[in-house]
Amino acid sequence: MSYLDHFNQAHNADVSGWTPWFQHDALLGYVQDSFKLRGIEFGLWRESDQGLIIPNEPEVALNQLFARFAKETYEDGLLWSWVGEPFPVKASVTDPTRFVMERTLTAPLGCLTFGVHLNGYVRTRQGIELWVAKRSQHKPTFPGKLDNMVGGGQPAGLGLFENLVKECFEEAGISETQANQAIATGTISYRHTDGRGLKRDILYCYDLELPDSFMPVCHDGEVESFQRLPIDEVLSIIAKSDAFKYNCNLVIIDFAIRHGVLTGDNTPEYAMLCERRNQLGG
Amino acid sequence: MSYLDHFNQAHNADVSGWTPWFQHDALLGYVQDSFKLRGIEFGLWRESDQGLIIPNEPEVALNQLFARFAKETYEDGLLWSWVGEPFPVKASVTDPTRFVMERTLTAPLGCLTFGVHLNGYVRTRQGIELWVAKRSQHKPTFPGKLDNMVGGGQPAGLGLFENLVKECFEEAGISETQANQAIATGTISYRHTDGRGLKRDILYCYDLELPDSFMPVCHDGEVESFQRLPIDEVLSIIAKSDAFKYNCNLVIIDFAIRHGVLTGDNTPEYAMLCERRNQLGG
Repeated sequence: MSYLDHFNQAHNADVSGWTPWFQHDALLGYVQDSFKLRGIEFGLWRESDQGLIIPNEPEVALNQLFARFAKETYEDGLLWSWVGEPFPVKASVTDPTRFVMERTLTAPLGCLTFGVHLNGYVRTRQGIELWVAKRSQHKPTFPGKLDNMVGGGQPAGLGLFENLVKECFEEAGISETQANQAIATGTISYRHTDGRGLKRDILYCYDLELPDSFMPVCHDGEVESFQRLPIDEVLSIIAKSDAFKYNCNLVIIDFAIRHGVLTGDNTPEYAMLCERRNQLGG
Repeated sequence: MSYLDHFNQAHNADVSGWTPWFQHDALLGYVQDSFKLRGIEFGLWRESDQGLIIPNEPEVALNQLFARFAKETYEDGLLWSWVGEPFPVKASVTDPTRFVMERTLTAPLGCLTFGVHLNGYVRTRQGIELWVAKRSQHKPTFPGKLDNMVGGGQPAGLGLFENLVKECFEEAGISETQANQAIATGTISYRHTDGRGLKRDILYCYDLELPDSFMPVCHDGEVESFQRLPIDEVLSIIAKSDAFKYNCNLVIIDFAIRHGVLTGDNTPEYAMLCERRNQLGG
């Protein structure tokens, strides 16, 4: 694995074979043929010049329509799990929630998803050290993988920073006072598919400088352990392995770029790494 | 002007109508029809499946070929000025110099150009204040426009950071000791045309935190004056005007993103601004 390989792995979806679907003019997702045809039969959408259009109906009716579609596709074995969590569908993170759908359905329907990720770090005499989390072996997704200190999906009804402060406490025992020192630093975005669906993901990234004495504590069971490592050691793990969850690699590479650890003088692919931090387009 | 308008203004070139030219497989530039045809007549390149290919000759012969082509096009009035400075032609910043050409010719031939830009800032109790330069009225390009504290083109034979340290002293009187504190923070890239040629530009950006007592002094006559402004005031100038040189707007917006001044919570177009900081593609 090189740094660029991690970008290739995260941004592995070619949506040219997928059909976009819209509410009026707002692009809400992309589907492959099986879900496209199933949706047409079901009355979820109809074909138009631009792709697929969902019915011109109020939010409540759309909630019901997508709930019935989720139930039917799940019962027919097209969905691989059922989270039971209504997920807000938006054209962008600042778009108001248009309607909700069962979370598992967002992948085959290629909806936009949003998350917050935080790099907690300490400045030492030897340089920057990064707090790294190890995901619980009991997590359904990416068990045992290395992770950013704090990370989480963006739910409806919370601001990004509000969500970050909440996740900081749950995942690492960072107090609200401490979490309020976090600095927004930009986004990482990519289109990822694991074959079952498409994740169009925008991660809102934050830095938090912590005192040498700080010790993280996980409160929600999602993290098995934390360790603090020199940034060069973290970069070496990234350059040589896929020990980190695929998208966390990108968040750390971005951190290393912004803090002058990777530079145009020491990293031949630097300009390309900078460019590929955001890959959704438009 | 909105923040996004500045990205549109910088990245205003549609290269789909331009023909790429190559040395072997290395893409070195793009030309419009007038220079394409003139180059074919002259023997500068020949047409191939992928675009135009320059002769398979050693560096010295290519230096001479491009020097003769520059002279002839200048004498025929196709070039609007003559800088008299041999410019290194590269496929990327880390590519060794393949050959050189008269600087004015790099625009109609759409070569890659590189620069270093530095935001000098001071942390005050009220927040971040940014040092802003005003370009001399005597500069041939963008006289009187606002600018980053330090900025300059990247010449052959110097490392990026070495060049930055040199420019820091020449443009703002920043000592080598002070300049060595600068932090590399990423790139800004875009394709810009002013109608006479194409600038495919990659700016290597740096931050330098300065003490409250620091006063910049211009040594090379390129800066008329400096002022220190609260970042919100600088952003307000950017949002409302084109007082800054077009590419400096992008370097400051990037600074504001990385320092948590513009965030996903306070800026609707945030994700798009993050995405558009690097627009060259590939």
